[in-house]
Amino acid sequence: MRGQKDDFGGNRIVIELLAFVQCSCYNIRMKKVIDCAAKREECDLLLTGANVFNVFSGTFEKLDLAVTDGVIAGLGSGYRAKTTYDASGLYAIAGFIDSHIHVESSMLSPEEFARLSVAHGTSVVIADPHEIVNVCGIAGAEYISEAFGRMNWNGVCPLEVKLHLPSCVPATPFETSGAKIGGRETERELKRGLFFGLGEMMNFPAVVGAEEDCLQKIGAAHALGKIVDGHAPALSGDTLNAYAAAGIRTDHECVDRYDCLEKLKRGLYVQLRNGSSARNLEENCMAMNDYNYRRFVLCSDDRNARDLAVVGQIDDALARLVKCGIPVSQAIAAATINAAECYGLKGKGALAPSYDADVVLVEDLQSFRVRAVFKRGILVAENGKALFRFGRYLPAEVNSTVNIRPVSADDFKMQPKGRARVMKIRPFGLATEEEIVPVRERDGDVVLEHGLCKLAVIERHFATGNLGKCLLRGYGASGGAVGISVAHDSHNLVIAGDNNADMARVASLLAEAGGGMAVSAGGKTESFSLEIAGLMSSASAEEVTLRTEELTKKAKSLGIPDGVEPFMTLAFLSLAVIPQLRLTDKGLYEVGECGIRKVPEFLD
Amino acid sequence: MRGQKDDFGGNRIVIELLAFVQCSCYNIRMKKVIDCAAKREECDLLLTGANVFNVFSGTFEKLDLAVTDGVIAGLGSGYRAKTTYDASGLYAIAGFIDSHIHVESSMLSPEEFARLSVAHGTSVVIADPHEIVNVCGIAGAEYISEAFGRMNWNGVCPLEVKLHLPSCVPATPFETSGAKIGGRETERELKRGLFFGLGEMMNFPAVVGAEEDCLQKIGAAHALGKIVDGHAPALSGDTLNAYAAAGIRTDHECVDRYDCLEKLKRGLYVQLRNGSSARNLEENCMAMNDYNYRRFVLCSDDRNARDLAVVGQIDDALARLVKCGIPVSQAIAAATINAAECYGLKGKGALAPSYDADVVLVEDLQSFRVRAVFKRGILVAENGKALFRFGRYLPAEVNSTVNIRPVSADDFKMQPKGRARVMKIRPFGLATEEEIVPVRERDGDVVLEHGLCKLAVIERHFATGNLGKCLLRGYGASGGAVGISVAHDSHNLVIAGDNNADMARVASLLAEAGGGMAVSAGGKTESFSLEIAGLMSSASAEEVTLRTEELTKKAKSLGIPDGVEPFMTLAFLSLAVIPQLRLTDKGLYEVGECGIRKVPEFLD
Repeated sequence: MRGQKDDFGGNRIVIELLAFVQCSCYNIRMKKVIDCAAKREECDLLLTGANVFNVFSGTFEKLDLAVTDGVIAGLGSGYRAKTTYDASGLYAIAGFIDSHIHVESSMLSPEEFARLSVAHGTSVVIADPHEIVNVCGIAGAEYISEAFGRMNWNGVCPLEVKLHLPSCVPATPFETSGAKIGGRETERELKRGLFFGLGEMMNFPAVVGAEEDCLQKIGAAHALGKIVDGHAPALSGDTLNAYAAAGIRTDHECVDRYDCLEKLKRGLYVQLRNGSSARNLEENCMAMNDYNYRRFVLCSDDRNARDLAVVGQIDDALARLVKCGIPVSQAIAAATINAAECYGLKGKGALAPSYDADVVLVEDLQSFRVRAVFKRGILVAENGKALFRFGRYLPAEVNSTVNIRPVSADDFKMQPKGRARVMKIRPFGLATEEEIVPVRERDGDVVLEHGLCKLAVIERHFATGNLGKCLLRGYGASGGAVGISVAHDSHNLVIAGDNNADMARVASLLAEAGGGMAVSAGGKTESFSLEIAGLMSSASAEEVTLRTEELTKKAKSLGIPDGVEPFMTLAFLSLAVIPQLRLTDKGLYEVGECGIRKVPEFLD
Repeated sequence: MRGQKDDFGGNRIVIELLAFVQCSCYNIRMKKVIDCAAKREECDLLLTGANVFNVFSGTFEKLDLAVTDGVIAGLGSGYRAKTTYDASGLYAIAGFIDSHIHVESSMLSPEEFARLSVAHGTSVVIADPHEIVNVCGIAGAEYISEAFGRMNWNGVCPLEVKLHLPSCVPATPFETSGAKIGGRETERELKRGLFFGLGEMMNFPAVVGAEEDCLQKIGAAHALGKIVDGHAPALSGDTLNAYAAAGIRTDHECVDRYDCLEKLKRGLYVQLRNGSSARNLEENCMAMNDYNYRRFVLCSDDRNARDLAVVGQIDDALARLVKCGIPVSQAIAAATINAAECYGLKGKGALAPSYDADVVLVEDLQSFRVRAVFKRGILVAENGKALFRFGRYLPAEVNSTVNIRPVSADDFKMQPKGRARVMKIRPFGLATEEEIVPVRERDGDVVLEHGLCKLAVIERHFATGNLGKCLLRGYGASGGAVGISVAHDSHNLVIAGDNNADMARVASLLAEAGGGMAVSAGGKTESFSLEIAGLMSSASAEEVTLRTEELTKKAKSLGIPDGVEPFMTLAFLSLAVIPQLRLTDKGLYEVGECGIRKVPEFLD
């Protein structure tokens, strides 16, 4: 209402007239749908012969599905239709809902992300643009929203996005992010209508501690009737009560089935996660039973382009659930109606009259291989391929976002004292360990003993010249340097290398490309641009997959051990919430049970 | 927002300031609740030792329940509290939700209704003021709303009412009602904010036929995000699809378990009804199973004062469900979280942090006998008795609503032709039959042969003088007359008697009393006022029960047979939607498979 008032200068007559026209159009549409249901009129589309899954009864019915004006008019037989789609032998399910995803983690543009996502049956994503907002501020979210808004395939947007306002920008005070969004700004932004809810509240200490700025964000969401998503690994007992007392309604970070059950009991929906690296679905679905299944939903959180293209998204999660022994009916409920209920998505999650005609046709109930996808009654994907392909929307605000003070090889020199605090990584793990080793100096720089390299984080939003440096063990990088502009959660440049020249070359490459991934070794450089906010590429999904794999292979050749993913490992070394040592543009931090504190890189 | 704009002349600064203050208060409250959950602060109330039902997991937990500021802060142990309530040995359940009730059917004022309802654990009622709005128009709904709004017991309203705007006023075009509410008025009223949703859409032919005025009502509700309740006995196949295609989301009229399952499959919630006369709960709960139980909710629809006082409301429904073999967890879900989800009642239906502290303590899980009831953390009933008693709010608009053109005995004379179309009633049934009998005339009036009496319906809203008359068999009324101002759905005066003088006396009595129930026989009259809109008494629940039972006994003495409830039978003889004959103020109507048509009382 306020929006309308502003747009039309408070002219009540105009407002009333608009409301009248809106209502009338609505009623005309409803009449058409009812007329089709009652078979007085021809429907737009008829899906014939499918085994239609009824998410309310948990059963399949062999029925025709009549669609008009983008919604389901009726289920039965004997309909007349303008178009018929033969779905014999297939199973019809309501469009899948991914309840929590960061689109940026695919490194794909929204347009390419939509192609892959829709091809796997996804109809709605609840997207938290946490990464791009940490780089570009609200403009980053506006870009995602507008990019989806511009997608038009035969009158529909093939993939609906419900966009959250990230709740933790910056994620920690220990780094320089591209934006800061406090309580007041959150309040103002949530009122605008761009955002569906408040994104995962990772700052659980602030919630449990009832810190004012944090409560202002949550309170604003509640006051506007918007959902607040959670992120609360292993919170339990009183702290879980306190977290839930803030009205937070979901969690995708449950560490095991017992954690799930405790969260569920305190009113949180459990989001079973099927991400590319973090996947708790198999363990956590063990908490599901015949009674409580309604409180489980599915999500991807972070999923890379290759997985989205080849393995799938919610379709893959469904296959995994069924393989774990979850009944098909409960698995599908988690992928559809449960999420619709959790997020208040009216008209979503079921194939029933008046519901949106978002339909997925799958081949079987083990693989859930997707044969065709309809969005509001429009065919949008067939045989695993999207039918649409959109040009890129790329506004200046998200382009050329890498802004560093020029660096030279000398900037990577480190003046050692007697001993160094070394960050040590292990294969197949995100946590790091601290190791204190004696070090020597030569030519004003530290001497890298065998197995050590340097790690640097360069502030890249405001060209402050902030440059964090420390020693790193377990990464390799022999004879070269590897760098990336995806570095959680502030996405500064993170570079590892065993010599200053290659590290400087990588920094320059990344800066010139507006962000990306780069390797420099033996006098050769190779890079791939992530020119959208330094996080995503505007290339095709195929090219992104191919080029990242090539670069990964190139980086691997620098002696990076098995179990260490060259780029993604770097991307998390700056996330100052995971134990034990992390490096940001502000320096080295120790993350312990008693909190997070800055520590010197060298000791006497 | 629009309301605020109007109130403050569109002053943006004032609006922003208000929003800021509102948010700030909200955050202060949230902080307090979190602080209690984290045990940094003392909570207001601690319920100790109860077996707490967790509606999300379907299990009981022996925990203390910490309450602050009307909401649940945490569940656990070791809380400090200002007040402690020992709930040892009891079961704690979230407050019950009655998903569909006509308060007027209790013949009680809202204040007395609340006393009985709350004593039986009801926390929220979705009320459809269909009866009083048919008499008083919107003023009737405003009265119900305001009466509940004025109830204040230690800072809380003990019974929350979510008020629907009746969708069918008048219910049929064959009678004179006190108000007419068309599509445009519905649209306007729904925008005001008084109403929660659109009441049961009984006019299913208009929905299925996509009639404009009907769709305008439904469309207005949808456009405002409000629910539309259903009423669709035995609709099936294409007509059910068409009804559901209008986005109607509930039905309390399912005729059997198969009807339930078909409705459920088409997206309607099944409301299991536990009314005083109409009860489909036992049959229809047979449609519940482990998968679909989430789509069932409970309702009373019409429940009289005696049943509310002695038998119960949702507590009684729970006991019946469990007796039918429904698992306790599913039964309680139907009484709580399912209804909260169906109607979008945030913070209701569960005992979890941040949820409203509406708590019912019951003695066991068979009888569900209610020991104590808390509303937003305030004790409101104990041992089956409400702790509060409110004075009556009785505005002029709902008082003195009976407005008839004065009648004399002669007005009840009937000029017969050779044969009469007699309305015949049978014990224990609502349907009537048509019987054609030869009749004689004497002194300008029909001669009542043995077993016949007269039935009259007097228009009582606008003193039009409309007076419908016919002959009635099976009622008795020997030597007197019986009348009532509750006559579905327009609530004109309906009077049955075997002589004109007593009928006129009853009419005058009802008119003088502003409505009620009356008996006149042997020169004596007895009556009980229903002075609130001619539908409800302002007396205490005890007196209403006592007096209606006395009057019923008195009426029964006029030879009314077993199985014919003297007053309630009359109340339905004017409802021109039940086969076969019905009498309204406009005359006699035949209700058949091919529709409803006016028929003459006499034939040549």
